[in-house]
Amino acid sequence: MNSLFEAAAALREGAVSCVELTKAALESAARVQPHLNAYLAMMDEQALAQARQLDEEGARGRWRSALHGIPVALKDVYCTKGVKTTCASLLFAGHVPEYDAAVAEKLAAAGAVCIGKTHMHELAYGVTSNNPHYGPVRNPWNVSHVPGGSSGGSGATVAARSVFMAMGSDTGGSIRIPAAFCGTVGLKPTTGRVSRYGVMPLDFTLDHMGPLTRTVRDAAAVLQVLAGYDQRDDSSSRAPVGDYTPVRVGIKGLRIGIPETFYYERLHPDVAAAMDALGKLADSLGAIRVPVKVPVIAEINATARIILLSEASAALGPYLADRTKFGADILALFDQGRLLAATDYVSAQRLRRIQQREFNRAFEHCDILLTPAAPVPAPRIGQTEVDLGGGLMEDTRLAATRFARAINLLGLPALALPCGLSTGGLPIGAQLIGRAFDEATLLWAGAALEDGMSWRDAAPPVV
Amino acid sequence: MNSLFEAAAALREGAVSCVELTKAALESAARVQPHLNAYLAMMDEQALAQARQLDEEGARGRWRSALHGIPVALKDVYCTKGVKTTCASLLFAGHVPEYDAAVAEKLAAAGAVCIGKTHMHELAYGVTSNNPHYGPVRNPWNVSHVPGGSSGGSGATVAARSVFMAMGSDTGGSIRIPAAFCGTVGLKPTTGRVSRYGVMPLDFTLDHMGPLTRTVRDAAAVLQVLAGYDQRDDSSSRAPVGDYTPVRVGIKGLRIGIPETFYYERLHPDVAAAMDALGKLADSLGAIRVPVKVPVIAEINATARIILLSEASAALGPYLADRTKFGADILALFDQGRLLAATDYVSAQRLRRIQQREFNRAFEHCDILLTPAAPVPAPRIGQTEVDLGGGLMEDTRLAATRFARAINLLGLPALALPCGLSTGGLPIGAQLIGRAFDEATLLWAGAALEDGMSWRDAAPPVV
Repeated sequence: MNSLFEAAAALREGAVSCVELTKAALESAARVQPHLNAYLAMMDEQALAQARQLDEEGARGRWRSALHGIPVALKDVYCTKGVKTTCASLLFAGHVPEYDAAVAEKLAAAGAVCIGKTHMHELAYGVTSNNPHYGPVRNPWNVSHVPGGSSGGSGATVAARSVFMAMGSDTGGSIRIPAAFCGTVGLKPTTGRVSRYGVMPLDFTLDHMGPLTRTVRDAAAVLQVLAGYDQRDDSSSRAPVGDYTPVRVGIKGLRIGIPETFYYERLHPDVAAAMDALGKLADSLGAIRVPVKVPVIAEINATARIILLSEASAALGPYLADRTKFGADILALFDQGRLLAATDYVSAQRLRRIQQREFNRAFEHCDILLTPAAPVPAPRIGQTEVDLGGGLMEDTRLAATRFARAINLLGLPALALPCGLSTGGLPIGAQLIGRAFDEATLLWAGAALEDGMSWRDAAPPVV
Repeated sequence: MNSLFEAAAALREGAVSCVELTKAALESAARVQPHLNAYLAMMDEQALAQARQLDEEGARGRWRSALHGIPVALKDVYCTKGVKTTCASLLFAGHVPEYDAAVAEKLAAAGAVCIGKTHMHELAYGVTSNNPHYGPVRNPWNVSHVPGGSSGGSGATVAARSVFMAMGSDTGGSIRIPAAFCGTVGLKPTTGRVSRYGVMPLDFTLDHMGPLTRTVRDAAAVLQVLAGYDQRDDSSSRAPVGDYTPVRVGIKGLRIGIPETFYYERLHPDVAAAMDALGKLADSLGAIRVPVKVPVIAEINATARIILLSEASAALGPYLADRTKFGADILALFDQGRLLAATDYVSAQRLRRIQQREFNRAFEHCDILLTPAAPVPAPRIGQTEVDLGGGLMEDTRLAATRFARAINLLGLPALALPCGLSTGGLPIGAQLIGRAFDEATLLWAGAALEDGMSWRDAAPPVV
């Protein structure tokens, strides 16, 4: 079964049971764990008990949602009642929450079966998932490469086909980057669309919750379950929830904006080739590619950086007294954040409003934007600089977040979508960016493009 | 004529013309200017031209609103097209805006006649209106005392009966403090209720726009004209606009919360006596005084202070290179703001949400809160400490803002209402605090209390 949708159909047809799907997921996750290190904790007992209950309900003809009986996983930032939730940090090594995050609650109510907590970049503050305390997460396409981050375990376990969906969180690309590097779909919804209640915060105004899945339709089914107002989350929006199920009517006439600057610059040749092919696919489906002007994205990224450094240091400040508890990479970021002035942060938040208005003008001329999700395929574990081609090097973190980070500041929805493999056999990801709260158009366009691609029958070596 | 409402009635009856009212206002303002220094600029020509136009409209039976033909003034923070707008600062000494603030626009459209720009504390960053560049504004009740600030000229000109209404702005009490010290009504609406478009900012999240008037009903009429969404102001709210006209039905059964802590502590004896009398008046009108718990207000004030220092320094930072352009008092504040860390500011904004939730619990037990607007009557010009009685001294700025500042952070509407005179012949002000966007209840209760007070026939020496 290649998708959540296929699994849901098989469940309803009685071709498979929830317990069977759950067992298969647990076995797969356990089998590849020595290779991928994708999990920090497994939830075998709870998962099987839940699956049995869901089988009983199904037998009585009660199906909770499209997610009924579907094995999923949660990044270890989501609080899970009675199950250790550590953020892959030593700070919270013994932390067992007494309550579920809103996302965990909603997934359980919809019948999804959580089999475990996925490994990640320490405190969600990085892009490699190369964790100094719990070891690196590895990429199923090549275990000497990173899966991206911070939701690296979620990307790896979905790509390895252990679960149909794993939740990630995205502060500066942390869903889209592992999706791109692992060859999965990754959806970062609009700010306020999915509740952050019960998620250990990295950044109060940049954190977003969303799924990594094998297909775009699967992401849509998950968003349908998760979207909506939650009074327990200050940033939650009352904007009406859309119908996210992509309808199979093609994208003839859809105006796809191609940014004239920044997003198609300094690309690894394999990424450039894949984006070119994807653009031609869009043309062949009748979509209209239009060149659009965007503001100077490097400046938006700079604003996001000031806000992230400040807010992350404020969130974790109380813990910084004991420096032995942190990896060197994130300690450096926390230290930078503590040096920033309040006036810098206030000015950055003011600039953010202006940059939001300016960026949104792009949508006067198109319905969605199409960009690469990242300029390079997944780097090797430990690689601090990536080769953009011809020996042009860039810092790994800067390269990985280059196309993702601004979208968190802007609050817009973005969908990462696999669009090919590199000559080295690593996935390449595209990014669709939409208007605020218009996830429906993103998912519709993403599904149409996905339908047009054949490469995805390829499976990673580690499954 | 003692109120905007009486003047409006006289206009409609033909007992007076708009031109006559405007001339009287201009003459009064000019006559008392040497004593009060309430204005930075007069707008005689525009005002008279506008009044003539309004008389013509009235003669044709067209009355724009309750404010048609009513002379008003604007604090010098409101941009006025073609009229110097300086914020009482040397920085903007030659600043002539090319557009009107939203408030100026709306007032003009409603038929109010703006006769001039009122003097204020430098850059609206203080409570005395003792301006080092343009001289102190003086209190009409005693010209050796301050009118309060920062909207000191607005308080003075309304108290001196030159205009029926003057707009103020309130970041930490800057409408309510001059209202209390000058014996006028002052309304600080809910955050987002009145557009800040075209107002020179002091603080991006604490600034509020509102009127100073002679009566509560007059404030209601002005709010009715000004309330509503404005897309040009990021902080503007789409919450529905209420009907603010107080209905004369008394306040029997209204639950008036009396905070158990902070607000009735360290009061000047005359303020304590006036508040006691006001409480008894409320009882006699059938209202129910209920003791209510409030959070530790000193902590909320501390949060507000961090945010104000940070945001004000961010707003004016670019100008601080030339220190000769600033008074010593505000230079010290700007310098303090520049020393704060981004993490302090972020933490303060987080705390703000928590404090908002905690404070709002008070309204589970009452409809409005009744407190003093300030713990003392107006201090003398130059007085850096005020005597709370018996030689207990407090810094003037801290004392003046003590009961006002937290309400800006919380975003709640608050109405300052004169409630008596001190033994020294200076006004004393009460403060009503309401639920967010429930200005209607504040104005209703304020009008009922006002109707029960007789002292207000007293006029200040300078009129």
